[in-house]
Amino acid sequence: MKKFINSPQNLIEEMLEGFVAANSNKVRRLETERVLVRKDAPVQGKVGIVTGGGSGHKPAFIGYIGKGLVDAVAVGDIFAAPPVQRAYEAIKAANGGKGVLLCIGNYSGDIMNFGMAKELAEAEGIPVETVVVNDDVASSPKERMDNRRGVAGEVILWKIAGALAEEGADLQKLKEVGERAVFNTRSMGVAHTPCVLPTTGKPSFEIGEDEMEIGVGHHGEPGIQRTKMMSADEVSELLTLKVIEDLPFKSGDEVVVLINGLGSTSLLEMYICFRKVNQILADHNIKVHRTYVGEFFTSLEMGGFSVTLTKLDDELKRLIDAPCDGVHFIQH
Amino acid sequence: MKKFINSPQNLIEEMLEGFVAANSNKVRRLETERVLVRKDAPVQGKVGIVTGGGSGHKPAFIGYIGKGLVDAVAVGDIFAAPPVQRAYEAIKAANGGKGVLLCIGNYSGDIMNFGMAKELAEAEGIPVETVVVNDDVASSPKERMDNRRGVAGEVILWKIAGALAEEGADLQKLKEVGERAVFNTRSMGVAHTPCVLPTTGKPSFEIGEDEMEIGVGHHGEPGIQRTKMMSADEVSELLTLKVIEDLPFKSGDEVVVLINGLGSTSLLEMYICFRKVNQILADHNIKVHRTYVGEFFTSLEMGGFSVTLTKLDDELKRLIDAPCDGVHFIQH
Repeated sequence: MKKFINSPQNLIEEMLEGFVAANSNKVRRLETERVLVRKDAPVQGKVGIVTGGGSGHKPAFIGYIGKGLVDAVAVGDIFAAPPVQRAYEAIKAANGGKGVLLCIGNYSGDIMNFGMAKELAEAEGIPVETVVVNDDVASSPKERMDNRRGVAGEVILWKIAGALAEEGADLQKLKEVGERAVFNTRSMGVAHTPCVLPTTGKPSFEIGEDEMEIGVGHHGEPGIQRTKMMSADEVSELLTLKVIEDLPFKSGDEVVVLINGLGSTSLLEMYICFRKVNQILADHNIKVHRTYVGEFFTSLEMGGFSVTLTKLDDELKRLIDAPCDGVHFIQH
Repeated sequence: MKKFINSPQNLIEEMLEGFVAANSNKVRRLETERVLVRKDAPVQGKVGIVTGGGSGHKPAFIGYIGKGLVDAVAVGDIFAAPPVQRAYEAIKAANGGKGVLLCIGNYSGDIMNFGMAKELAEAEGIPVETVVVNDDVASSPKERMDNRRGVAGEVILWKIAGALAEEGADLQKLKEVGERAVFNTRSMGVAHTPCVLPTTGKPSFEIGEDEMEIGVGHHGEPGIQRTKMMSADEVSELLTLKVIEDLPFKSGDEVVVLINGLGSTSLLEMYICFRKVNQILADHNIKVHRTYVGEFFTSLEMGGFSVTLTKLDDELKRLIDAPCDGVHFIQH
């Protein structure tokens, strides 16, 4: 395993130490727990936005802490949900008197631990609502959306909920708009190379020299099809058509496009793929309002990318366009 | 070769098409040449900042186009300098009446082609000055700094020169401050995994299963030492001490730190490494004014990272802190 680490036991602590030192203008760490918060948290009179999950997805989750985005993150071990106490401390640290919106991915560990943390917080009088992200169309049929994983679409939720919270919206409004944003968001990914887990030295999945996995999850979960490598245009078309037909996105719709690199896929490749995605959207008369291309939610050094579309209405458009000042996500 | 491309012949064109489509709010392409410019270029009354070089380093070079940064980029093939005509068109497109500052890396092809383009532009009455970046301390002894390669330090020059040009400074002032910034900037990198060139399918260098190359160049150029893999702390200390002793950086100095991922090295690892860099700087009583951690100047999917330090004075501090709005480099 070729990685720049010291010991597998200490890597989360050491990463957090480096992260807080590098970004002390925007974040601080709670003394009691592996929770990072906005430097000025809790912001009074604003609903707190809380997220968290396993480590290894950087810039997610902690790179989204900042104004107009996330207030507190409960940090888990590599690809593992944070424990209940940690999620609970994140909620308390983010509550500025108007309650907390949990924005989390649809993974059983996260659902369970954040769910119990929510109960603890509510017992102390902190109002908490939850929006669960389930944008990965490959992970379950449309009839069972509750079984779908959350992938890069989480970034869209953080952006939209973060902007709305900054405007002063109340918790019920945030839940309503957040759930609409999630429902309007669909993603699908592909990977040809696993990441190697720094804790075990094992690859996240096995795959042949000339193969790729269509619909792969963020932790190497199996997708819907294992095929020979395709061209950029072929794979981009496959992903984009699956995403379009799922909502379905229709002629006249306006969308955000997010092309998310999973780790080792170059920006060069991602822009070649976006070219085709953009052509397909034009063919369908779907208007691109805004495009993000880059690494937004990785799986360490996995090779692959995903395509995310979010259908916008006027409110979502205003929120996606609002400025934000996260550690690794800044928008003027 | 597992890459999301179509044909090696078309990949630069297709990448540019995707890039311009995704970022049409900030950039446009010249009709005649592979040159991308700020959407509002040339900006009247401002010195134009021009750069360029081979493709495969994204977000460099084109990701730095934008307000407070770069005005025009001449785009080369993979790891190859852009031709003279292209560099010349970039200069013309960036000239808003106050001339153009070329900010380029110290590679023979770039020096030659941008040099000839400068002569062509000057013959048409456009004042042009050049600042050559040679921050890679591993590439030549200190006595022959003119032989040193430019690596991630180019990003620091674009930031500083871009901010100064935005303030309205004239060409001579830009050259003076740009050269000071470059002189104050020193870098060194390490890699354990080559990238694979999409044009040939060949790796950029050969290396053993448990080895890494200290002082590697951005195109896989040999460094100063091939060793067994070290821990994050060991390699971070080695790079940082070499960089510190080169200028040398001294007790009381204030610096910018740039930890630059070369492609497939995760942010998790980079923050673990920054932790050690930061400790060493503290031990030397060198004050960190600002830190950048991420992928700023890659070599496709090469595995590795570099450490860059820039010594600041009050003027450089003001310029590094100024806001900017590049495609892939935004600062509030």
